[in-house]
Amino acid sequence: MSKYLVGVDIGGQTTKMAICTKSGELIEKFSIVTDIFDEGIRIIPNAAKAIEAKLEELSLAIKDIQGVGVGIPGPVDEQGVVPVGVNIGWSKPMPVKSILSEILRVPVIVANDANIAVLGEMWLGAAKGTKNAVMYTLGTGVGGAVIVNGRIVNGANGAAGEIGHIVVMPEGGAICGCGKTGCLETFASAKGIVRMTKEKLKENAPQTALNNFEEIRAKDVFDCARDGDEFALMIVDMVGYYLGLSAANMAVTIDPEKFIFGGGVAYAGDILLDAIRMHYAKYAFDTTKNTSFVFARLGNDAGVIGGAYLASGLGIRR
Amino acid sequence: MSKYLVGVDIGGQTTKMAICTKSGELIEKFSIVTDIFDEGIRIIPNAAKAIEAKLEELSLAIKDIQGVGVGIPGPVDEQGVVPVGVNIGWSKPMPVKSILSEILRVPVIVANDANIAVLGEMWLGAAKGTKNAVMYTLGTGVGGAVIVNGRIVNGANGAAGEIGHIVVMPEGGAICGCGKTGCLETFASAKGIVRMTKEKLKENAPQTALNNFEEIRAKDVFDCARDGDEFALMIVDMVGYYLGLSAANMAVTIDPEKFIFGGGVAYAGDILLDAIRMHYAKYAFDTTKNTSFVFARLGNDAGVIGGAYLASGLGIRR
Repeated sequence: MSKYLVGVDIGGQTTKMAICTKSGELIEKFSIVTDIFDEGIRIIPNAAKAIEAKLEELSLAIKDIQGVGVGIPGPVDEQGVVPVGVNIGWSKPMPVKSILSEILRVPVIVANDANIAVLGEMWLGAAKGTKNAVMYTLGTGVGGAVIVNGRIVNGANGAAGEIGHIVVMPEGGAICGCGKTGCLETFASAKGIVRMTKEKLKENAPQTALNNFEEIRAKDVFDCARDGDEFALMIVDMVGYYLGLSAANMAVTIDPEKFIFGGGVAYAGDILLDAIRMHYAKYAFDTTKNTSFVFARLGNDAGVIGGAYLASGLGIRR
Repeated sequence: MSKYLVGVDIGGQTTKMAICTKSGELIEKFSIVTDIFDEGIRIIPNAAKAIEAKLEELSLAIKDIQGVGVGIPGPVDEQGVVPVGVNIGWSKPMPVKSILSEILRVPVIVANDANIAVLGEMWLGAAKGTKNAVMYTLGTGVGGAVIVNGRIVNGANGAAGEIGHIVVMPEGGAICGCGKTGCLETFASAKGIVRMTKEKLKENAPQTALNNFEEIRAKDVFDCARDGDEFALMIVDMVGYYLGLSAANMAVTIDPEKFIFGGGVAYAGDILLDAIRMHYAKYAFDTTKNTSFVFARLGNDAGVIGGAYLASGLGIRR
């Protein structure tokens, strides 16, 4: 009886894997180095070998596995082909699904890694039991995902969940990597927070501990704010404003039960979440006032757990 | 064999009804006056009587009917009970579903009227064949609905699709009926357009044909703009700006195939849609640039047709 699921999360440096039961128990986590040489041709076969070895070690057979869900850092088409995988050496289309299913002889599902991380949070993490949620991934950029009725929304052009590109400053904003100006990402990503901090330091020449840093990181801003530095607190308030405004506007669009915050910037903790909540309260439509704001819980495991969930036969909607 | 569907759209003055085939052919439309006296106690029984009479006239029996879908101007709970129906005299909870199904002896589904209108557009109108769409209803206020994967999104608090309350002017906006300021409704509803026009007339004392109107309506603004009146064109441009910005931000959230515009203000026609498209192009994320902007097509029939669609067993997602 196939009662196990395998999740695979392929990153530029490490390929993480996990074996879970169908009821959501994490049996084993393991990882290998992602071999990006020779156009990444060995990435998928290597993952297959690692899975086979782990199954043997656990005295499991391939027939015990219902399927494998794979997360890829890049777009994935409906046939499980990755047109291009910039960070993993794939310059040509890579038919991940067919390669892996031919080696392992089990059903394989392939999806974008940001999306499977959200599925992980939904299955066993911060969004557990939630049918409608929005996840913000506050990293170098701002990514995201939108879950409606237990499934990730991809949208007509695969652009659903690109919430880093919500325009929160229609005029006079900084240029975003996407070519527009005033996107949420230019204010609420690690880069954006640093950009905004430097801009305000220049503008106002304020008294702040941040003057003493040679190279300011987003973390420094939050650390100083936690120490009561008024300038840093103002920056945190601005980050909260842009995120809170974007959340309030999503609340009257899809009305999620929860907003979930993951990614490196989210390690700032309650000082960030409190700032977001304060501005959200100002801009939120009355019936959405009590929507909850929480942190992602699975950290680096979200991807493999989401991959396993994907393999359970539920998953991505197109 | 039950191959017909009945749609009912209860309004403050008229109760509209329609009989459709399951394949979407409109067989017959008919309507009665909505009797709001005595706390609206006769509204549902009267509709039942009208349906029975129409079936007899068409030589159909109740067994030919698969179900009845009813739209109500107000919130509806999951049991098909309307907690309160302000415009139709219902001050106490009205168990619409149980009353109507007991009289007619067919399955009944009840939903909010704005939502069934969108289902109608999706089944046979402007959103036909579309799985993902956002509808703006530009009337006295601004309503809306969000369709993901062929179903209306209600959200955790029933606030999904309340897109009139997207905040498009975070600071210094006019007060909205919802208690917040700067909502889309304060700029893009008929009332909002008039408000904005009056405000700008006062501010700038411009030369415009609109100075000659004793009581300006939104329609007058569009008529003057079409005649080349520069001030009126500026107002239309502003309406387009707020709608276009809101659409661009929804595109990176749920990425619909189409934005559909209905309601009285939408009769302004292409001059409005062109203004929206122009500003959308500025604020839209690259991959969503080609999303289409269209007008609703079914007009007053959208509700009854959507009611019939609802009765086909598809419908509202919670």
